[in-house]
Amino acid sequence: MADNNKFDEQTVTELVDNIVKSYRECEYISKIDSARQPDKDVIEGIINSVKKLLFPGYFETKRLKSEFIRYYVGELIEEIKYNLERQMIYAYSFTNGEDMKKAEKLAKEKTECFLVKIPGIREYLNTDVYATYEGDPAAYSYDEIIYSYPGIYAIMIYRVAHELYNLSVPLIPRIMTEYAHSRTGIDIHPGATIGKYFCIDHGTGIVIGETTIIGEHVKIYQGVTLGGLSTSGGQKLKGVRRHPTIEDNVTIYAGASILGGNTVIGANSVVGGNAFITKSVDRDTRITVEAQKLKIRSKGNK
Amino acid sequence: MADNNKFDEQTVTELVDNIVKSYRECEYISKIDSARQPDKDVIEGIINSVKKLLFPGYFETKRLKSEFIRYYVGELIEEIKYNLERQMIYAYSFTNGEDMKKAEKLAKEKTECFLVKIPGIREYLNTDVYATYEGDPAAYSYDEIIYSYPGIYAIMIYRVAHELYNLSVPLIPRIMTEYAHSRTGIDIHPGATIGKYFCIDHGTGIVIGETTIIGEHVKIYQGVTLGGLSTSGGQKLKGVRRHPTIEDNVTIYAGASILGGNTVIGANSVVGGNAFITKSVDRDTRITVEAQKLKIRSKGNK
Amino acid sequence: MADNNKFDEQTVTELVDNIVKSYRECEYISKIDSARQPDKDVIEGIINSVKKLLFPGYFETKRLKSEFIRYYVGELIEEIKYNLERQMIYAYSFTNGEDMKKAEKLAKEKTECFLVKIPGIREYLNTDVYATYEGDPAAYSYDEIIYSYPGIYAIMIYRVAHELYNLSVPLIPRIMTEYAHSRTGIDIHPGATIGKYFCIDHGTGIVIGETTIIGEHVKIYQGVTLGGLSTSGGQKLKGVRRHPTIEDNVTIYAGASILGGNTVIGANSVVGGNAFITKSVDRDTRITVEAQKLKIRSKGNK
Amino acid sequence: MADNNKFDEQTVTELVDNIVKSYRECEYISKIDSARQPDKDVIEGIINSVKKLLFPGYFETKRLKSEFIRYYVGELIEEIKYNLERQMIYAYSFTNGEDMKKAEKLAKEKTECFLVKIPGIREYLNTDVYATYEGDPAAYSYDEIIYSYPGIYAIMIYRVAHELYNLSVPLIPRIMTEYAHSRTGIDIHPGATIGKYFCIDHGTGIVIGETTIIGEHVKIYQGVTLGGLSTSGGQKLKGVRRHPTIEDNVTIYAGASILGGNTVIGANSVVGGNAFITKSVDRDTRITVEAQKLKIRSKGNK
Amino acid sequence: MADNNKFDEQTVTELVDNIVKSYRECEYISKIDSARQPDKDVIEGIINSVKKLLFPGYFETKRLKSEFIRYYVGELIEEIKYNLERQMIYAYSFTNGEDMKKAEKLAKEKTECFLVKIPGIREYLNTDVYATYEGDPAAYSYDEIIYSYPGIYAIMIYRVAHELYNLSVPLIPRIMTEYAHSRTGIDIHPGATIGKYFCIDHGTGIVIGETTIIGEHVKIYQGVTLGGLSTSGGQKLKGVRRHPTIEDNVTIYAGASILGGNTVIGANSVVGGNAFITKSVDRDTRITVEAQKLKIRSKGNK
Amino acid sequence: MADNNKFDEQTVTELVDNIVKSYRECEYISKIDSARQPDKDVIEGIINSVKKLLFPGYFETKRLKSEFIRYYVGELIEEIKYNLERQMIYAYSFTNGEDMKKAEKLAKEKTECFLVKIPGIREYLNTDVYATYEGDPAAYSYDEIIYSYPGIYAIMIYRVAHELYNLSVPLIPRIMTEYAHSRTGIDIHPGATIGKYFCIDHGTGIVIGETTIIGEHVKIYQGVTLGGLSTSGGQKLKGVRRHPTIEDNVTIYAGASILGGNTVIGANSVVGGNAFITKSVDRDTRITVEAQKLKIRSKGNK
Repeated sequence: MADNNKFDEQTVTELVDNIVKSYRECEYISKIDSARQPDKDVIEGIINSVKKLLFPGYFETKRLKSEFIRYYVGELIEEIKYNLERQMIYAYSFTNGEDMKKAEKLAKEKTECFLVKIPGIREYLNTDVYATYEGDPAAYSYDEIIYSYPGIYAIMIYRVAHELYNLSVPLIPRIMTEYAHSRTGIDIHPGATIGKYFCIDHGTGIVIGETTIIGEHVKIYQGVTLGGLSTSGGQKLKGVRRHPTIEDNVTIYAGASILGGNTVIGANSVVGGNAFITKSVDRDTRITVEAQKLKIRSKGNK
Repeated sequence: MADNNKFDEQTVTELVDNIVKSYRECEYISKIDSARQPDKDVIEGIINSVKKLLFPGYFETKRLKSEFIRYYVGELIEEIKYNLERQMIYAYSFTNGEDMKKAEKLAKEKTECFLVKIPGIREYLNTDVYATYEGDPAAYSYDEIIYSYPGIYAIMIYRVAHELYNLSVPLIPRIMTEYAHSRTGIDIHPGATIGKYFCIDHGTGIVIGETTIIGEHVKIYQGVTLGGLSTSGGQKLKGVRRHPTIEDNVTIYAGASILGGNTVIGANSVVGGNAFITKSVDRDTRITVEAQKLKIRSKGNK
Repeated sequence: MADNNKFDEQTVTELVDNIVKSYRECEYISKIDSARQPDKDVIEGIINSVKKLLFPGYFETKRLKSEFIRYYVGELIEEIKYNLERQMIYAYSFTNGEDMKKAEKLAKEKTECFLVKIPGIREYLNTDVYATYEGDPAAYSYDEIIYSYPGIYAIMIYRVAHELYNLSVPLIPRIMTEYAHSRTGIDIHPGATIGKYFCIDHGTGIVIGETTIIGEHVKIYQGVTLGGLSTSGGQKLKGVRRHPTIEDNVTIYAGASILGGNTVIGANSVVGGNAFITKSVDRDTRITVEAQKLKIRSKGNK
Repeated sequence: MADNNKFDEQTVTELVDNIVKSYRECEYISKIDSARQPDKDVIEGIINSVKKLLFPGYFETKRLKSEFIRYYVGELIEEIKYNLERQMIYAYSFTNGEDMKKAEKLAKEKTECFLVKIPGIREYLNTDVYATYEGDPAAYSYDEIIYSYPGIYAIMIYRVAHELYNLSVPLIPRIMTEYAHSRTGIDIHPGATIGKYFCIDHGTGIVIGETTIIGEHVKIYQGVTLGGLSTSGGQKLKGVRRHPTIEDNVTIYAGASILGGNTVIGANSVVGGNAFITKSVDRDTRITVEAQKLKIRSKGNK
Repeated sequence: MADNNKFDEQTVTELVDNIVKSYRECEYISKIDSARQPDKDVIEGIINSVKKLLFPGYFETKRLKSEFIRYYVGELIEEIKYNLERQMIYAYSFTNGEDMKKAEKLAKEKTECFLVKIPGIREYLNTDVYATYEGDPAAYSYDEIIYSYPGIYAIMIYRVAHELYNLSVPLIPRIMTEYAHSRTGIDIHPGATIGKYFCIDHGTGIVIGETTIIGEHVKIYQGVTLGGLSTSGGQKLKGVRRHPTIEDNVTIYAGASILGGNTVIGANSVVGGNAFITKSVDRDTRITVEAQKLKIRSKGNK
Repeated sequence: MADNNKFDEQTVTELVDNIVKSYRECEYISKIDSARQPDKDVIEGIINSVKKLLFPGYFETKRLKSEFIRYYVGELIEEIKYNLERQMIYAYSFTNGEDMKKAEKLAKEKTECFLVKIPGIREYLNTDVYATYEGDPAAYSYDEIIYSYPGIYAIMIYRVAHELYNLSVPLIPRIMTEYAHSRTGIDIHPGATIGKYFCIDHGTGIVIGETTIIGEHVKIYQGVTLGGLSTSGGQKLKGVRRHPTIEDNVTIYAGASILGGNTVIGANSVVGGNAFITKSVDRDTRITVEAQKLKIRSKGNK
């Protein structure tokens, strides 16, 4: 490079060459001349449309009137169908490498299967909102929960993504739950199974692994991990049950970790804050960490 | 459904019927024919406008000139007043069910009360920024803190929402702090009371409950919980003092939990990382968790 | 104020006066008549453009074709160069107070130095994606990781910001990593040094301090802190080594804290969940917290 | 003003004072503290929505499917109803000075009356498109006409605005036709009465006055004026018939002017280019301007 | 309809029914279940991109640098190719009814043919700008012409659309020239043939028909029509030569009409304002309208 | 080119080469490596801001309140000053080739001179709106005129551009009036001099040349040209008086042309439609074209 005008046409050419070369060499992170890829922004748009369908009247800029409600619903269905089908086509062809015809057929089928699940998802969410309100003295109304609670937002997206996961749709369910994760700090894998009346308080730092099973009336707090014991097995563990089972009416306080595919927390149990559990616990049990030994000194001796 | 053209007009009609039916049945999550609702996007816009008023010259795309500064301020006030008043009207009528006249009167009064608090909020934020800079060797300038520290962002929104909470404005304060929560992972309830020179480092996972009282010159780190002992009482506990008191000059390190409405951390104390405290602590105390027993093995025996 | 029309012209004038007065008085949080400031939105736009350059074909709305790939690359370089140079000028003149000529010269030099690093950044990211896939049984494809894993997103931004930090660019690197922090809950200071094949799982609540050094093939989980022992020294500690060293092939499980500038975790070691470590650990060591004493009671006696 | 820093705070204050003073003094062009005004952008949005309803499938970014067509129609009606009703409220209260209650009642009634006219408007437009296609050898398809012919665009907006004019809606009809005028150069007053199979070719410069009456199967070209004889009477002429009558099957070529409220062009007549007509013409007449005397010289003698 | 709540669910249903019925009945203006249609907004976007390619450095928000110029050009080509090809597919399948495979093949071929014409179009435009500057004493610079002269804007779009017309692309050329018509009041059919050094002054109201042929160094003013004699033949005249020939170095002043497929204006002629010409004129002729008989009266006798 | 994959990398390279080559060769229409250029969109934004300042309360989405009016005005001034000054810098340096320092100084001076003219412009516009209302029986209110009359819109932009023209600002005045031309079909050169109470009816096709002088209380209709006799002199005529003088109280009906720098229409005169005038007319004169000889035939003999 010349001194004075360092970044001349020659330099630009070399830089472009080097980057294009890197596109050939670093194989895991380049997609040139591949099929069209899914679009995260559109998938986030789908989440927003589904949210409007699931919580009618909360996320509009005008009030919903009953005489127009059917058209409102029909249009949202059409929009979700159009976008979801299209993103699935890209997911099937881009990631799974299906040929276009197959991808289109699959996308159509799966989208239609998903759409008919919407009333069912609403039934679950209705219980989740109820449980969240009943369990939180800081909640002033159902509205406050629907508008502002990250727990409900993350559960809503999880319940949507879970239906797509059950339909074996690639890529999209995870993009959805990671979007929730990004917005709430709550990381629920779409593969987890979660019963009605599920309640998350505060939520930041919660991790719920792919093969977790959670019953009804379960409440968990921020920083709770329902995870695997060790993932050093990596890809070899795919499909193996790695995460715990939480039975009905269990409460898990902040920072507790419950790990392992054979670990079951029995119904009606309470797990105290910061507990670290890798073995099963009987039903109707209260588990707390024995009081920490705290060292208490006057502040002279920092 | 027919095989070939599964998603025909008939199917769509049935799906629409089912969803509309679910709107009647799942009562906690539908608002049809109700009054107009608040708009989260507008509330986020209000936060942005207030931010510009509180930190003049930091979030503009051009420099502020002193000869125009009055007009800049006046226009922002007008804009905030217009939008906040409107959102309050929706909040009072939508959630609280006030009649329109009452909602308009309340919204006007409360907005005006809020606006005159702005210089006071600035006074507090000025000390918060100072404390954050002084306490953090990784901070290179006040600017860096204002631009990029999530702690200051969350405190700013909290201080704004707290004034609205004190005015008993429904819904909006919580929407504001949950917006901060979503962006920073820091969950400060608008009801908490927090003194000057407040400093948050890193911040992700912090929870500060509704009835918490925090003095001046307090510093807290990521993952700290200032919470309730148990919320199994649910809605019955509303209004009861449930969260701790932190006196002046206290530092609380990462992951510590301080719980309970009778728990007081005395002035000048230091709470070590991961401490779990449910009883009061005298002033000038240093509390650390006694060293964990770590099991140390060679890695052969995983 | 009059009763009936409380918020009249007089009131507005007084409020404007008070706020403008506060702009003079609260010195840490006002920038009037200063040079033009950096623009966070533009910096986020730069991150998006760099992301497209680093992961070609993943974040487009149409497929990339090899016959146009050079032009795609060249245009992105031009755009990044233009915006980054401009933001650097503002950062140098606004925050560092450099005169315009100097600021322009520095901005040009540093931007050009940064751009030639891009192929090198891609080389590192390629290994990070590989390591993430291999280590996670829940990962279905490289694509899923690039699209949705917050760990990869945070590492990508860190690797970009780190190059700017090494060039001593003010403000911008930290704005970038705090943007990642906001989106992922993962807080990596741009000053940290991190080797190839770095893998973050879940990630929320991770803190990696400014003077941390991390080797190759390291994996860390949510809630891990690689931090300082105490920051009560504040600004006096600037530049001092305050954070630990993690050697090659170390795994650190969720919630572990490793603190202090002299603390070294030797190669091939495994640090168990929630471990709190302030002293060095030999290589090939497995460290776990000794089993908590859990108090287990029947739930009658809450 | 000082020399060096001419535009200081003092200067700005004086300029603001002068402009505010002018707001009090120039009475025809200031609306301070008046009711909220109509919004031209929203009215243009209404035109776009109505256009979609009138020409289904032409102005979408995706194809319309019959199984969703009802929902598409219903949603557009809801949207048009909402926006039109609101704009009418502003028009009635802002311009006509109606009290709010009356304005709301009128707006609701008139909007509903308008909506039921839509199938009728379509019936007319269907004939206009047919006539335009049949009469123009340069037209390759109906689609080309609907997409790109300014004549059809102007007629469509006229037919919509005319219904609102007939309902005595203030301001809005004229804003609509002037929007068409701005986009096409075709100025049809919403008060004009125009029959089926109306065809405009090219169109720029056409003026059709408020009290014009046009029959069926009429075709007019660019630059045609159907105007008043003299408007020196100004406001005193309001309501008086001032513009001509054009009977069925008349063709009027480019640049012709037909003026006056008593002027009738009888059925099946043809008016030649540039004719200037202020008296009635019998049916089945062909009118051309007698050949101009052209002066023809060799170009030496400019 | 009931009196009180006129617009209830029943009324909405009926209105929707009537409109949907009208979609079946008015056949020329409905496209339900047809193939996807072209998108006018995208076509306008293509015009903007082509404009940038044709006039580099005039319509950017930053200056073009020579070291990046190739990438700028390449990216614009890619973008134009992508969008134009896609719109052509819709045009071929939607309007012409081609099957998808054929439409894709045609679209690809025609787009590529078009792109290689761009340097040639620039060659013509260069002469048009030169002629416009030389001929207009009100022009202060070439820049002023490129930025603001409607004549150049309309000629530019015509020259682009003409290449597409020559390639027999359906719909799109006309949408383009009608866009120019809408913005400038200048209506040049894409089928016209126009030589170099073409200059339009003011331009509003100009009409240039499909089969017009214009030589080099021709200048025309506002309101000039180069049209057909009569279009009462309608579709039967398609393909027939209907518009005049204008030879080199002719100037046509404002408001002149030259009509008919056999009418030739010989080289170097000048046609005076408002002349109405339907027969050929020899070369080197100056044609003016013989002085009008003006009636001049004192203003008493209106 | 190969047959199968015609548009390969090689083809793209050649096409890019040809276009870049054309950038060097076609000299009038390329600006590579020149200074930054003015931005038409920003200039249109300036027009919108000025429009709001000139017609307060008409183009807002909320009502203006008197207690905030000063701030509203101050902010608009700041915004206009910022943008206009910047665009002038580009205009002086880009087109006129001034060095940066000079360009900045000029831009600052001229912008400030312009701003103090605003109350004066309002004074003129107030009379224009009054005259338009009084003269038009189709006008229902002042509001209708301000909202929708193209004449007022064009006059407003002309009056603004004229002040800039008088300050010898390059490029920008013409961009402004051509923007008005594009939206209204009314082409008023910013150099023209026009008195108070100016009224334009319909307007499409009006041309008012650079050196035109118009008195007070003048009214003109669509298609009127106030032009030059011949522009074959081109650039040699720059600065010469080429357009007519129209004295007070003159009315000019549709389609009339008045040409030539020595042509004066005396006060109180009326010029009839389509009159073509190249010589002066005394005051108090009524000029009409003597009745055309119309050929009237029965329609059998087309």
